[in-house]
Amino acid sequence: MTRVMHKRSVSKPDGRAMHLYAHAPVTIEGDVPVPPGAAPTPSPHLRWHPLRGEWVAYAGHRQHRTFLPPPEWDPLAPTVDPDAPTEVPRGTWEIAVFENRFPTLFGGSHERPELIVETAPGRGACEVVVYQQEATGSLGALPLPRIEMLIDVWADRTAELGARDDVAYVFPFENRGVEVGVTLHHPHGQIYAYPFVPPSAARELEQQRAYLHERGRGLLERMIERELVDGRRVLYDGEGAVAFVPACARWAYEVWVAPRRPAPRFDDLERAERRDLARALKTVLLKLDGLWSAPMPYMLVFHQAPSDGALHPEAHLHAEIYPALRLPGRLKYLAGSEIGAGVFTADTFPEEKAAELRAIEVRLA
Amino acid sequence: MTRVMHKRSVSKPDGRAMHLYAHAPVTIEGDVPVPPGAAPTPSPHLRWHPLRGEWVAYAGHRQHRTFLPPPEWDPLAPTVDPDAPTEVPRGTWEIAVFENRFPTLFGGSHERPELIVETAPGRGACEVVVYQQEATGSLGALPLPRIEMLIDVWADRTAELGARDDVAYVFPFENRGVEVGVTLHHPHGQIYAYPFVPPSAARELEQQRAYLHERGRGLLERMIERELVDGRRVLYDGEGAVAFVPACARWAYEVWVAPRRPAPRFDDLERAERRDLARALKTVLLKLDGLWSAPMPYMLVFHQAPSDGALHPEAHLHAEIYPALRLPGRLKYLAGSEIGAGVFTADTFPEEKAAELRAIEVRLA
Repeated sequence: MTRVMHKRSVSKPDGRAMHLYAHAPVTIEGDVPVPPGAAPTPSPHLRWHPLRGEWVAYAGHRQHRTFLPPPEWDPLAPTVDPDAPTEVPRGTWEIAVFENRFPTLFGGSHERPELIVETAPGRGACEVVVYQQEATGSLGALPLPRIEMLIDVWADRTAELGARDDVAYVFPFENRGVEVGVTLHHPHGQIYAYPFVPPSAARELEQQRAYLHERGRGLLERMIERELVDGRRVLYDGEGAVAFVPACARWAYEVWVAPRRPAPRFDDLERAERRDLARALKTVLLKLDGLWSAPMPYMLVFHQAPSDGALHPEAHLHAEIYPALRLPGRLKYLAGSEIGAGVFTADTFPEEKAAELRAIEVRLA
Repeated sequence: MTRVMHKRSVSKPDGRAMHLYAHAPVTIEGDVPVPPGAAPTPSPHLRWHPLRGEWVAYAGHRQHRTFLPPPEWDPLAPTVDPDAPTEVPRGTWEIAVFENRFPTLFGGSHERPELIVETAPGRGACEVVVYQQEATGSLGALPLPRIEMLIDVWADRTAELGARDDVAYVFPFENRGVEVGVTLHHPHGQIYAYPFVPPSAARELEQQRAYLHERGRGLLERMIERELVDGRRVLYDGEGAVAFVPACARWAYEVWVAPRRPAPRFDDLERAERRDLARALKTVLLKLDGLWSAPMPYMLVFHQAPSDGALHPEAHLHAEIYPALRLPGRLKYLAGSEIGAGVFTADTFPEEKAAELRAIEVRLA
């Protein structure tokens, strides 16, 4: 039952890499396009934040975008008119990945300023992941085989980007909705390949390492077991993957999706796990959209093991989905306590929110 | 030149504490008011987030507010009509502090659920700080003596709340503007007294402790010295206090305000330092409002030493101001990278933003 995924990698005329994926052989019609307008050579840099002990990324070229596209222009749709090129060609591809034209992290050479804090080149990569050729739709609405292929793409990117010397952590994510700042509605996600292990991941790995050392078990593996026994917050309970509102949810409708087995990285997932993870993801995303019969704005992020060559038996790949709303049309604002102190405050209970989501019926077919 | 501050503490009819402060003796006209509507007894609890290694606060009673006030009703203005009581009385007070009626943290007894993660009572306190009796205005527009008194109030609250057994950290802050979720425009701030040291503060203290141990100097003290020598990002350079856009700003117009001397807590500040800190704060806030001749939405948070009885020579009290906008009307969205990975990304440079703020002239008088 192993599905074959075809991949074709090309260079765009401006030098950016593009990878096209499909179940059938990939064909490209016409030239590989680049949108109009000059893009300055990216030269992002990092600055060390001594008080927080973390890097901050600065990409000044992002503000110098020379091309202001009309609102109806969809750069992620296949190029129809060669005089109005988009980012992706026509052809038989199903999923497209290309380097962001205005990246926050970039693999080339870098200039960086002399400053009173430590600086470093903003190495790494920022990729855009186009889920489909059609302009409308959503991750949750993709057919299961396409979501499974997307997992294969995440695995491919994790392996390929993770093998680079300047990449320490591969971070696939999706920002969805104007509420989280997204103005481009063509279904797509992003991948950041950081040159360091980002703070949120580092903190989780530290907690997982300590737990594994003390208990000889995976921390998330153990949480999953307990969530399944409790049952109240479980949204999907499959052979290879699970989804639940965690008992410690920071966002009203926060959901975690994970393989049962503590696979450290996307590329460690077995075929059956990928298939069930696709079912779990689709179930959750359809429930979130079904809740108020409206697209739920969210951030969906994946935490996995660093790409530093070590095994990381403590790491357990999982998605964390942070829906931006706590009531229809009512944003959860992050303010003083959350941003300034790091303490999330909730006025709802995960058990109630999980019950609402459990009651939403979805069709996976 | 020591200013006398008068303080009068009373109990509201519902048991909540209120403290009124003024330069002249405090008088109260009429009864101490409580807004209409029943408030359930708060019983917040904390849940341990095993992956992040941090507490999340749940206050379910906050969603059961029985009183939906008309939008023009200002609960922070003095009660004029006893049949329409607000939170504060008429009288000669200048600054009022009272316990939030729907607190996220509360000193009373607590119920807490049995869960698969560790739980703890949501002890501590949430206080509202009313800066003035008048409904319109802002922190930056307060006269200097009132800002200095506010610093005295923060010091008083730090000492009084910090002395409680159930308080480990006193956190004064202000959320300003609808962009950060504030719908009540009467000039006011808040104080959270946490029963633990919150993660952001804990991380800063850890960095400061390591630096002090290695270098024998304060980390922020050293940063301030370097910022003053560099000069490009300095917004205020006074005898007792400074303000600057830090070289590692995470927000476009982020500003730090601090006493020069590494005073660990508000109550450690000398009189002259309080006076100059008031000037520094006012300078910065007027510059932010002057930038686009419009009130700048922001989060203003204070980091100080924990209230755990130890000396904390590593701690250096300071304000961090996070303006929510990066261009007029354009929000900085926190999305996948910031929220999911903990990596802030900026497309502007602190040097440019500091130059804009330096060019704004303000009048302190």
